[in-house]
Amino acid sequence: MRKFVLLTGFEPFAGDIVNPSMEATRCLQGKTFELNGDEVVLQAVAIPTEFHRSIEILQQAIEDIHPEIVICVGQAGGRMHMTPEKIAINLDDARIPDNAGQQPIDRPIVENGPTAYWSSLPVKAMVQAMRDAGIPSSVSYSAGTYVCNHLFYGLMHLLATQYPHIRGGGFVHIPFLPEQTVQRSEPSMSLEMIVQGLEICARTAMAEKKDIFLVTGTEQ
Amino acid sequence: MRKFVLLTGFEPFAGDIVNPSMEATRCLQGKTFELNGDEVVLQAVAIPTEFHRSIEILQQAIEDIHPEIVICVGQAGGRMHMTPEKIAINLDDARIPDNAGQQPIDRPIVENGPTAYWSSLPVKAMVQAMRDAGIPSSVSYSAGTYVCNHLFYGLMHLLATQYPHIRGGGFVHIPFLPEQTVQRSEPSMSLEMIVQGLEICARTAMAEKKDIFLVTGTEQ
Amino acid sequence: MRKFVLLTGFEPFAGDIVNPSMEATRCLQGKTFELNGDEVVLQAVAIPTEFHRSIEILQQAIEDIHPEIVICVGQAGGRMHMTPEKIAINLDDARIPDNAGQQPIDRPIVENGPTAYWSSLPVKAMVQAMRDAGIPSSVSYSAGTYVCNHLFYGLMHLLATQYPHIRGGGFVHIPFLPEQTVQRSEPSMSLEMIVQGLEICARTAMAEKKDIFLVTGTEQ
Amino acid sequence: MRKFVLLTGFEPFAGDIVNPSMEATRCLQGKTFELNGDEVVLQAVAIPTEFHRSIEILQQAIEDIHPEIVICVGQAGGRMHMTPEKIAINLDDARIPDNAGQQPIDRPIVENGPTAYWSSLPVKAMVQAMRDAGIPSSVSYSAGTYVCNHLFYGLMHLLATQYPHIRGGGFVHIPFLPEQTVQRSEPSMSLEMIVQGLEICARTAMAEKKDIFLVTGTEQ
Repeated sequence: MRKFVLLTGFEPFAGDIVNPSMEATRCLQGKTFELNGDEVVLQAVAIPTEFHRSIEILQQAIEDIHPEIVICVGQAGGRMHMTPEKIAINLDDARIPDNAGQQPIDRPIVENGPTAYWSSLPVKAMVQAMRDAGIPSSVSYSAGTYVCNHLFYGLMHLLATQYPHIRGGGFVHIPFLPEQTVQRSEPSMSLEMIVQGLEICARTAMAEKKDIFLVTGTEQ
Repeated sequence: MRKFVLLTGFEPFAGDIVNPSMEATRCLQGKTFELNGDEVVLQAVAIPTEFHRSIEILQQAIEDIHPEIVICVGQAGGRMHMTPEKIAINLDDARIPDNAGQQPIDRPIVENGPTAYWSSLPVKAMVQAMRDAGIPSSVSYSAGTYVCNHLFYGLMHLLATQYPHIRGGGFVHIPFLPEQTVQRSEPSMSLEMIVQGLEICARTAMAEKKDIFLVTGTEQ
Repeated sequence: MRKFVLLTGFEPFAGDIVNPSMEATRCLQGKTFELNGDEVVLQAVAIPTEFHRSIEILQQAIEDIHPEIVICVGQAGGRMHMTPEKIAINLDDARIPDNAGQQPIDRPIVENGPTAYWSSLPVKAMVQAMRDAGIPSSVSYSAGTYVCNHLFYGLMHLLATQYPHIRGGGFVHIPFLPEQTVQRSEPSMSLEMIVQGLEICARTAMAEKKDIFLVTGTEQ
Repeated sequence: MRKFVLLTGFEPFAGDIVNPSMEATRCLQGKTFELNGDEVVLQAVAIPTEFHRSIEILQQAIEDIHPEIVICVGQAGGRMHMTPEKIAINLDDARIPDNAGQQPIDRPIVENGPTAYWSSLPVKAMVQAMRDAGIPSSVSYSAGTYVCNHLFYGLMHLLATQYPHIRGGGFVHIPFLPEQTVQRSEPSMSLEMIVQGLEICARTAMAEKKDIFLVTGTEQ
């Protein structure tokens, strides 16, 4: 049987000409692997870096692809690790305008929606599997208050309210590409390693029904 | 009329012999100021750095003091700013044991409690007031997964379920003191400035009924 | 007998309206202490943030004050500690123009001067004395390639070639003031602590004939 | 005609089981390229992370290989960029013991040697060539006070006093490999990119007789 994993990446924003999340997910488009007799197909979709329209495009992709797992991916400039996000919060608070010029401040993403949603991906199993492959990785407990968190919250709200049969959904933040840091002092990760990490995330999310025990918490 | 602000600080943990949150709140014990004809009194209470017992001691202090505002304070080693926290999450995930040797992993703080609570303090007004006084300050969107977040969530759950008449509650993370960083390369803030910042937080929380408009969000 | 310590601070640069080195040294102007029966007087002089003219003004101050010790002080934005500098190098390599619009690239400060000079201050004794007072401090092995290093090298060259009787000279880099980091995520140190640290540096430089044993090196 | 570039890497130290400088230089062993009709051969040699013996092994390699260019390479844990070093200083000041248990404090590398030597490699041309290839790179103005700086100074002293016919020598610090940062929050760079960067350094050092104009300085 064929099963699908939907991977989304963002279009460049804030004046950048590249977004590693779009580059990396595009590399995985159409890639397949076998799992317990099923063929799993990765489907990549580009999402505009815009409040609200990002969620609309995501929902359209869900309708088109009928995925079993949804993993949204975004750039986290300054991070050194692949970081699956644990929690999405019901808050838009934009430091800079999005690609459509909107800059919501202290607004709920979904009026009367829950304050937050947990990721339904096995985030610690994903971290452990990436580490086993030599990829720097850790769990993050904040996806920020911009379009990344917006899309993540929108996804979890869709899964909770309209697509309860979709088995898992969540968000992975990834570092800058080296080409983005050629002249500035920021950490980066190679495209090859990011792509490999995301494929491991997809495989782990398909394979694991529940998360593992792993010490990854933080005092702050 | 007399009104009370309850400030809590933590006992030292993780081998440290000092905790800036206990030092700073202790400096404010008994301090008073006048607001709209009322006398406001600050009451400082020390809280053990222990899961669950921290919340019990906090509740006892609430019962004793009948505060109008509760501000819990904790150390965030490595931060450079005074950081009022925006959100508490229903998750204990300890990287290290607490002072009683407990190390919960991936456990809810309150079974079947909501995923998260917003601070009911005017966090942006507090940040702005501290900045106006020359104190480096910003909003934080993650209080971690250790005893600080635990107490913060416990506070907000108490306010929501047992003390709805208490006007505001929340958490402020503060930097290391200089004496903690004498030989290690970490940022710090003087005790005087931390104390001044916390007093400003208390005054602002008493004075402001609602939060202000301020751009403080973050992309991640 | 009266003896003098010359302290220099820089005027603000790069669009800043304050320079902590000028603020802090000004606070010490005229301050005296007693040492082995002598009265030691601190004299503060403001130096323009300009290549070459900074050294001229420094030399004028040396001629006027006849100091026994010279400590030049400059801002090192981003550092967390008080950092006496170990070495000055014969290189101007400006990332940004100075206050007179000059931007020398890869030029020697003194044609045919030695590649570098060691500080003749007891830098480790200064670090230890500041730490004993609870002030975060460490030795730095690079003063950069801008006006700070320029003045430091110029000072050491003057001492080596024209003022061999001056007992010690060197440079101390200091952090941002809190007021400079109110809205940006950078470490800072209170003016009081910087002033106290510089006074300790002056006392230690006057009191110690040779440096102490202390582990402060770095792998890179 | 055959010409040789000597590349040296260090053995692991400080409890690490890998050293990216040894891994990366080993990958380039025997690699050749053509330049102006000559065949250039890269020769990699492993150096023990020990004061003094490192310089002896380096000198032996120089005697064996008769290189035209010598590039010593070392790990700079925490850096984000490939960083050619500009200056070597005559100081051993070890924070930790070397692999032979020696921990010199405040000792000259060469008694009565000059305070410092400039690299005789075209460091800015190397940085620019790496950037042109999409590799994060910048000039460093301090190689520390441990075995890396020790070997760098030893090399430059050998070139100045015994091998004046060797055209260029210097040092390049490189980041951690990803496998070293799997569980710790430190920046890293892929082995492929480090190897590519070092090859570019070798080519540039062979091809360029003098350095280029490039703004890379630093205020501190």
